[in-house]
Amino acid sequence: MNHTSFIPASWDVEIQSRVTTISALLANNGVDAIRVFAGFTYITASGEVMYFVRRPIGFDDAPYVHYIRKPEMIPALLPECPKRLALKLDVTTVSEYRRLQNVFPEAEIVDSSAMMRAVRSVKSPFEQELLKVCGKHHEAAYRAIPSVFRPGMTDLQFQIEIERLLRQEGCLGLFRVQGGSMELFMGNILVGDNADSPTPYDFAMGGAGVDASLPVGASGELIAEGKTVMVDACGNFNGYMTDQTRCFCLGAVSDIAQKAHRVSIDINHRIAQFGEGTPAKALYEMACAMVEENGLLDYFMGYSQKAGFIGHGLGIEINEAPVLAPRSKDVLQAGNVVAVEPKFVIPGVGAVGIENTYIVRQNHMECITNAPEELLQLG
Amino acid sequence: MNHTSFIPASWDVEIQSRVTTISALLANNGVDAIRVFAGFTYITASGEVMYFVRRPIGFDDAPYVHYIRKPEMIPALLPECPKRLALKLDVTTVSEYRRLQNVFPEAEIVDSSAMMRAVRSVKSPFEQELLKVCGKHHEAAYRAIPSVFRPGMTDLQFQIEIERLLRQEGCLGLFRVQGGSMELFMGNILVGDNADSPTPYDFAMGGAGVDASLPVGASGELIAEGKTVMVDACGNFNGYMTDQTRCFCLGAVSDIAQKAHRVSIDINHRIAQFGEGTPAKALYEMACAMVEENGLLDYFMGYSQKAGFIGHGLGIEINEAPVLAPRSKDVLQAGNVVAVEPKFVIPGVGAVGIENTYIVRQNHMECITNAPEELLQLG
Repeated sequence: MNHTSFIPASWDVEIQSRVTTISALLANNGVDAIRVFAGFTYITASGEVMYFVRRPIGFDDAPYVHYIRKPEMIPALLPECPKRLALKLDVTTVSEYRRLQNVFPEAEIVDSSAMMRAVRSVKSPFEQELLKVCGKHHEAAYRAIPSVFRPGMTDLQFQIEIERLLRQEGCLGLFRVQGGSMELFMGNILVGDNADSPTPYDFAMGGAGVDASLPVGASGELIAEGKTVMVDACGNFNGYMTDQTRCFCLGAVSDIAQKAHRVSIDINHRIAQFGEGTPAKALYEMACAMVEENGLLDYFMGYSQKAGFIGHGLGIEINEAPVLAPRSKDVLQAGNVVAVEPKFVIPGVGAVGIENTYIVRQNHMECITNAPEELLQLG
Repeated sequence: MNHTSFIPASWDVEIQSRVTTISALLANNGVDAIRVFAGFTYITASGEVMYFVRRPIGFDDAPYVHYIRKPEMIPALLPECPKRLALKLDVTTVSEYRRLQNVFPEAEIVDSSAMMRAVRSVKSPFEQELLKVCGKHHEAAYRAIPSVFRPGMTDLQFQIEIERLLRQEGCLGLFRVQGGSMELFMGNILVGDNADSPTPYDFAMGGAGVDASLPVGASGELIAEGKTVMVDACGNFNGYMTDQTRCFCLGAVSDIAQKAHRVSIDINHRIAQFGEGTPAKALYEMACAMVEENGLLDYFMGYSQKAGFIGHGLGIEINEAPVLAPRSKDVLQAGNVVAVEPKFVIPGVGAVGIENTYIVRQNHMECITNAPEELLQLG
C-alpha cells in the first residue's frame, strides 16, 4: 500500500499562483470578489484571499483564516464589502444564493461558472504532477486485474476484487462529478450484452446495474466464453483523477470485436499526435471518420443508445472542460487534461475499446495511463 | 451474494400513493405543479404525474413518459402551463432555476424544499420494508467483520476488507447525501486517536483521512493493543440506507472507554422506548443528561471538537429529517426513520459507542440494525 501525502513544500506557491490567475480575471471582468466553492473562499481582484470556515481546515493559525458559524458573520470581517461578487452559479443552490444575497444586499452577484471552468481546464505543473502520480497507481492496479479473475465469476464478483486492488493501491474510491447528471460507485465493469443496456446517466457506456436504485454498470452477468469485460474504474488517488478503460476477454471473441478494439487503440494513438490549438470538435470528427472507414459506425459509442461525445476534460471532477463532441467550441490548450474514450458495443460480445488520459502539450498529447492496451485474455 | 431486485408488484400502488400525498399538499398550498428531483417529474395538484426524460427510465411505453432533449420542450407537452410551480430550491442550482424561469415565464416559482423534506421524513410501509431488508444485510456483513481482521493491520487495510464484505453482501457502495456539507467513500473506520482528528464535514465523528484531498476517516493508523476501532460503514443495499456503528477493540481497553460504550448502548435502549409525539430535542437532552450523570460529558460527541447532534433521519439520503439536536423543532412521527448515534472519543483509546437505525412507532422505536452491540474483541 502506498499512501504518500501529496501536499508538497511548494503548496503555498501553488495556491498563490492560483489566486494570481483568478484575481487577474476578476480585475479584467470588473468583479471585486469571488466565492470559489462550497465553504467560503473569498478572493479579491487585488489578489487577497480569505477563508471563512466553520471547522478546522489544516492551516488554522494563518491570519487569513476566519472562523464563522454562519455566512451572516462575513461582512463584518471584510475590509470593505464587494460591489460585484462572483459566485459559481452552476453549483450554488437557489437557497444558498438567496441567503448570500441577504448577506451582501449592496452587491451585484454575477456568475463565475464559465470563467472558473476555463481556469480549471488548464492544469498547472503542480496539478499535472499529481495527475501523473495518479496515472502510475492506476496503471499498477490495472496490471494486477487478470490475477484476481476466477472462472465462473460474475461481473459483480470480479468488480469487487478490482475495487479491492485499487483501494490497496491507494485509491480514495470517491468518484467526484459536477452536477446531477451522473453518479457512480467506484467504476463501471461491463460484461457481454449488459454493455448495451441503456442508462439514464450521461456516461459514455451504460449497463443496467443491479436494480433501479443505481441503474448503471454491472448487473450480475456471468463472465462467459466469447464475452468481453470492459473495466472503467476509479482513478482518484490524490484528489485528482485519471480515467482509464481496458478490456479483457474469456476465450475467443468475434473478429468484429477484435477489429473494433484495434480501431479504438488507433484512434487514441492518432489523437495523441495533436497538440494545443486543435479544435476539440475536429478530433471528434476524425474519430468518426476512422470508425466509418472501418465500417463500424453502428457499434460506435453504444449500439441501442449512443453517447454524444468521445472524450472529456477531467481533474478534481470527472466532467471538466474541454469536451470532445460534435458541437464543442473548445480549442485544446497546453495543460488541458483530456480522457479519450472511443468505445464500441458489439451485440452478443460486449464492449470493446480503450480510454486513456492525456496532458495536452504543444505538438502532441502525453499519455499518463499506461496499462497494456490490447484485449487481454482472462483465465 | 444476494442481489434481489426490489421493484415489487406493488410499485405502481406505491407511486400512486406518493403522488396522492404530494398532490394533496400542493392543492392545500395553492400550487399547481411541482418538479421533484433532477430530471423532470411533473406532478399536478389534481394528481396527474408526467415524466420528462432525456434517456430511458425503465417504463418508457407508459403514456405519461415523454422524451425531451431539453426542458424548453416541456410546455408544449403540458395540457396547460402552471401558474405556480414548486421546485426544491435547496437542490436546484441557480443556473437550472434561471433556465426553468425562462421555460415557464408566466409561472411564479415557489420553494417546495420544506414540504418535500417533511413528506420524505415519513416512510411508507413499502419504504419501511426496503429499510428492513437493508438492515438485515447490514447486520450480516457486520457479523463477519471480526473474521477479516489480521494482527498488524492498519485502519485502511481493515477498512478495505470490511468494504469487500459489504459489497459481497450486496451493498451498492454509494453513499448518498444531500448538499455540499458532507462526502465520504464507503464508510468511516476510526482507530485510536485518529478519532479525535477534526474534519471539515458535518459528521458525528471525524478522522484525518489520508490527506487533504478527502479529509475524513482512516489515516493509516495501526490497530494496536488497547485501542478501539469504530466501524460506521455504508448500509445502502437497495437505494434506501440503514446507518449502523459498532466498535471493536484489541486487548484490554481503559475502564472509561468500556463505561462510555455501555452508556451509549443504554442511551440507545432508552431512546427506543419513546414513540410518536416525542420532541426530537427532548431525546437529545435526555441523552446529554445520561452522559452527565455518568461524568462523561468531556468525551461526548467528540473530544477536541464536538458534533452538535446525536441522531438524524435517513432514507434515500443520509441527512433527512428529523434531527436530534438541541434546537430541533422536529416532533417524531410514526414512520420516521432515525439513526441514533451517541458516541464518545476517549483520548489515548479511540472512539466508542454504537449507532442503530429505528423506525418510529406509536409507543416505541423498532430497531432494524441488529448486529451485536457490545465492544467486541478482535484477534
